[in-house]
Amino acid sequence: MLDGIPDLKSMSAEQLNALCDELRNKIIDTVMKNGGHLSSNLGMVELTVALHYVFDFPKDKIIYDVGHQCYTHKLLSGRADRFDTLRKFGGISGFPKREESEYDCYNTGHAGTSVSAALGIAKARDIKGEDFKVIAVIGDGSFNNGLVYEAFNSVSEINSNILIIINDNHMSISPTVGSMHEYLEKLSAESEQRAKKKRHETIFERFGLSYEGVYDGNDLLCMIEKLTEIKQKLQTKSIILHVVTKKGKGYLYCEENPQETHGISAGHVKSTEYSAVLGQTLTQMALTDKRIVAVTAAMTPSLGLSHFFEKYPERSIDVGICESHAAVVCAGLATEGLKPYYAVYSTFLQRAFDQVVVDICSQNLPVTLCIDRAGISGTDGETHQGEFDLSFLSLIPNITIAVPKDVEEFRQMLIESVNFNGPLAIRYPKDGFRIFENTSFDFGKWEKLCDGGDVAIIACGERMISLALSAAQIAAEEDIGCSVINARFVKPLDTQMLSSLTQKHIITMEDNALIGGLGSLVDSYFSEGGKIIKNFAYPDEFIPHGSVKELIAKYGISVKNVSDYIISNAHR
Amino acid sequence: MLDGIPDLKSMSAEQLNALCDELRNKIIDTVMKNGGHLSSNLGMVELTVALHYVFDFPKDKIIYDVGHQCYTHKLLSGRADRFDTLRKFGGISGFPKREESEYDCYNTGHAGTSVSAALGIAKARDIKGEDFKVIAVIGDGSFNNGLVYEAFNSVSEINSNILIIINDNHMSISPTVGSMHEYLEKLSAESEQRAKKKRHETIFERFGLSYEGVYDGNDLLCMIEKLTEIKQKLQTKSIILHVVTKKGKGYLYCEENPQETHGISAGHVKSTEYSAVLGQTLTQMALTDKRIVAVTAAMTPSLGLSHFFEKYPERSIDVGICESHAAVVCAGLATEGLKPYYAVYSTFLQRAFDQVVVDICSQNLPVTLCIDRAGISGTDGETHQGEFDLSFLSLIPNITIAVPKDVEEFRQMLIESVNFNGPLAIRYPKDGFRIFENTSFDFGKWEKLCDGGDVAIIACGERMISLALSAAQIAAEEDIGCSVINARFVKPLDTQMLSSLTQKHIITMEDNALIGGLGSLVDSYFSEGGKIIKNFAYPDEFIPHGSVKELIAKYGISVKNVSDYIISNAHR
Repeated sequence: MLDGIPDLKSMSAEQLNALCDELRNKIIDTVMKNGGHLSSNLGMVELTVALHYVFDFPKDKIIYDVGHQCYTHKLLSGRADRFDTLRKFGGISGFPKREESEYDCYNTGHAGTSVSAALGIAKARDIKGEDFKVIAVIGDGSFNNGLVYEAFNSVSEINSNILIIINDNHMSISPTVGSMHEYLEKLSAESEQRAKKKRHETIFERFGLSYEGVYDGNDLLCMIEKLTEIKQKLQTKSIILHVVTKKGKGYLYCEENPQETHGISAGHVKSTEYSAVLGQTLTQMALTDKRIVAVTAAMTPSLGLSHFFEKYPERSIDVGICESHAAVVCAGLATEGLKPYYAVYSTFLQRAFDQVVVDICSQNLPVTLCIDRAGISGTDGETHQGEFDLSFLSLIPNITIAVPKDVEEFRQMLIESVNFNGPLAIRYPKDGFRIFENTSFDFGKWEKLCDGGDVAIIACGERMISLALSAAQIAAEEDIGCSVINARFVKPLDTQMLSSLTQKHIITMEDNALIGGLGSLVDSYFSEGGKIIKNFAYPDEFIPHGSVKELIAKYGISVKNVSDYIISNAHR
Repeated sequence: MLDGIPDLKSMSAEQLNALCDELRNKIIDTVMKNGGHLSSNLGMVELTVALHYVFDFPKDKIIYDVGHQCYTHKLLSGRADRFDTLRKFGGISGFPKREESEYDCYNTGHAGTSVSAALGIAKARDIKGEDFKVIAVIGDGSFNNGLVYEAFNSVSEINSNILIIINDNHMSISPTVGSMHEYLEKLSAESEQRAKKKRHETIFERFGLSYEGVYDGNDLLCMIEKLTEIKQKLQTKSIILHVVTKKGKGYLYCEENPQETHGISAGHVKSTEYSAVLGQTLTQMALTDKRIVAVTAAMTPSLGLSHFFEKYPERSIDVGICESHAAVVCAGLATEGLKPYYAVYSTFLQRAFDQVVVDICSQNLPVTLCIDRAGISGTDGETHQGEFDLSFLSLIPNITIAVPKDVEEFRQMLIESVNFNGPLAIRYPKDGFRIFENTSFDFGKWEKLCDGGDVAIIACGERMISLALSAAQIAAEEDIGCSVINARFVKPLDTQMLSSLTQKHIITMEDNALIGGLGSLVDSYFSEGGKIIKNFAYPDEFIPHGSVKELIAKYGISVKNVSDYIISNAHR
């Protein structure tokens, strides 16, 4: 039934139910092969079919908050034939993409933007005098994010009607925390009772939204009926529809293990996860150092901190998807002499940029940012790559930025971080594949991994140091001597080592955007001349989805390219 | 009575009232001379005296949200003798500063951080097993900010008792907008009625906070009584105390003109404000171009847009102090073909960093950011300087960054921006003092203001171009020829002009941090060698308060320093 764009409106209830089964199977099959978001998409099948049945996409507009729950939407909007390329390099994205289909009106990836975007789109509609419906679908996890509240707060001010659907599955990636979540639960519990008597005002009505709930989002016919009714009401007001769905619906293993099956990875290569090292090391350190507190924003397991949270609940804080708030809480803790470790994905730390600048760094507080999924993170694409953190952090005064060359150096950095009395960022990728030989670790100092007089390769992070060492080896075969330097502190630069470099040719290599990163700092260091510098880093563009390996190669950072450059230029 | 730290607890009611008068006079006198925040501080006198009477600072901790209302607090904590240096270079800051006094436990400047910080401090207290009270004082304007909601949402999760005082004066800088504000008004209106009968649950109780209100924050004895009672209750729960204060209290002109007297500038020099040009130009453009929408986050008058808002209310959106939300609304508007102009102070745009990256730039949407108070902004200090925007914007793919050399070029950029089909940032300072000679304006292209063969000075913005032209003149007297280039687009660089430069010596000058700014982009452009480059920009530190002129000079960017460098190096 999924050829082209299925004509739902002409289908019988039986056919629609059969379609849901087909969608569910297609999602399970594809995600098992390609990786992707499983449980959340299984929960959304009926709701999405009902939305497509009742509304007229792409004339009507729908924004999926975060966006990873859009698979059924993609399958119903003419992308079923390409669905086997999901999350593959050059294939369709796991998130809504305007570039991909006119059915995707707004790209998402980070939590909480859907209501603001819906208000903007609806306001544009009203300014232009057009007539269509605008819908935001948002999970209860995103509901913690302050952006949603900011949007609610301006619903009456902007005064353009929208439909907000809360998809309440009691989970973000970890189970949802916070009072808003408890409130949603309370509403669900009261639902039946409320239906009978005069309802009290919900929190949403305080914001000028008409509240309708709670309904079973996995009951297709109920959803169709309810949405049909709401569609009419949208002419005159903004509505919030509260539905409960079952994460992992229709696939028993997922229903029972929603946290483990939120995101599925395709294939497995033997690796040590940096997050595991963070968890082990921090848990051990916290045993003797009572100042250590771990803070997360809704990703505790993926950040490796589940065990820490179990062992030290009184020194563990998960604030939900509120990256800015988490940063300020850390600053507050640090003013009182505690030692907070804020673990966060690189891309989500962007959400706390101002708080890192003002609250942490301008107060020069000893907060340690443990930045996971830094550099290219792979198959989630543009909105999840971590290629900007070296750039947006290095511009901030007072911060020290460390990039371990392997998991062992990461462990060492963590151990030494307890005595470091200022803002510290340690950035690392998901997987560690290699342990390099260690020289002694000297906090703030770079390390020369091999010595050669013609070219100095300054590289940071496991991925780049691996490539650099291989390129140096190839160059050596051509009698060109390369030093490979582990720039394990990107800020401040190790100027003692930099000033001692006698090589005329300098190469920088980093798993980060070119602008503002390590290369750019080195360029500025040598701006008064005398060196020939070549920067290997990501160009000035957003990086799409694909495997880490494919993407690094796409941007020309390979052993071959680096060694070719060296061989062609070293004797220039 | 203000010598040293006055012993409030030993004072009679009469003496306390006299103290309030003395404080009020001191504040008025000082702000009239030095500039500063007047109305908000006049409103806070009694509440602050009551807080100091009831609580034990610095053992107890108080965080002032945004912080500009802390003058009485400073006067009561041993800084009265230095109060005449308020906001002056080297003097005391207009905001709380840990570096200044142990009575200031947390630095603020940007809205909405106080509750998160209070929770962090209280959590630290509980982890350490200490016993003191933690208080956040927050205005109703800040209450719109999502960070406050994120903090509320985790009050029960973090489970450390704090007191939150809402100082409700119905104003942020503009009158407060949004549903939360209306809700606070409703609570005030219902206050008397509610006292009599069983109270309904407030929105705050939904977050696990015990609500007490509404009380007159300018009634000293009432405040002392209420705070004494609350201090006891804090042993067992978190409390939100809702007080109403009168902005400008005790100074008739301020009471009647709270918006105009929110911030007072010291002295006046003849200038044209860039914001006035923004307002005039945009209003004119909007007459014929129906796509133009103006968006602000609570600063409409200071951004020059009051007239636009009056003339085109249906195309004007002020979302309150919600910079992230404003950015996403703009992205939504742009997806529907409208042309949003988001006017915002440089320092506050930091709050929307992630939304500029993900929502605006990764979707490559034609949103124009009009960035006011860019570069050094002066007497508000660290938290209000705009020295980072070139750095945190230039790292973002797809964005174009323009820096007008004067108000006329700014006007020209605005006019041409309507046909520019991508994310555009235009950054400018508050005041324009000079109009330079114009060549024809070519979008994206730099402009050579004078020609000389020895040194090329690449400068951006009025302040730097003024200095550059003067330095070039001095160098000319020593027979050194300088080209001065107006780098009116910092991104992308005008590589055509850069590659045509024959001078061996390059100087860059910018009103921005060195790291990641114009200089750093030019350094990277020439990284392969052949040039001797010197970057004039701000060093890697937070810039304190002082006048623009004093601060620029402090960081060595002066005609003398630049011309000295040229004279010593041009023939090297």
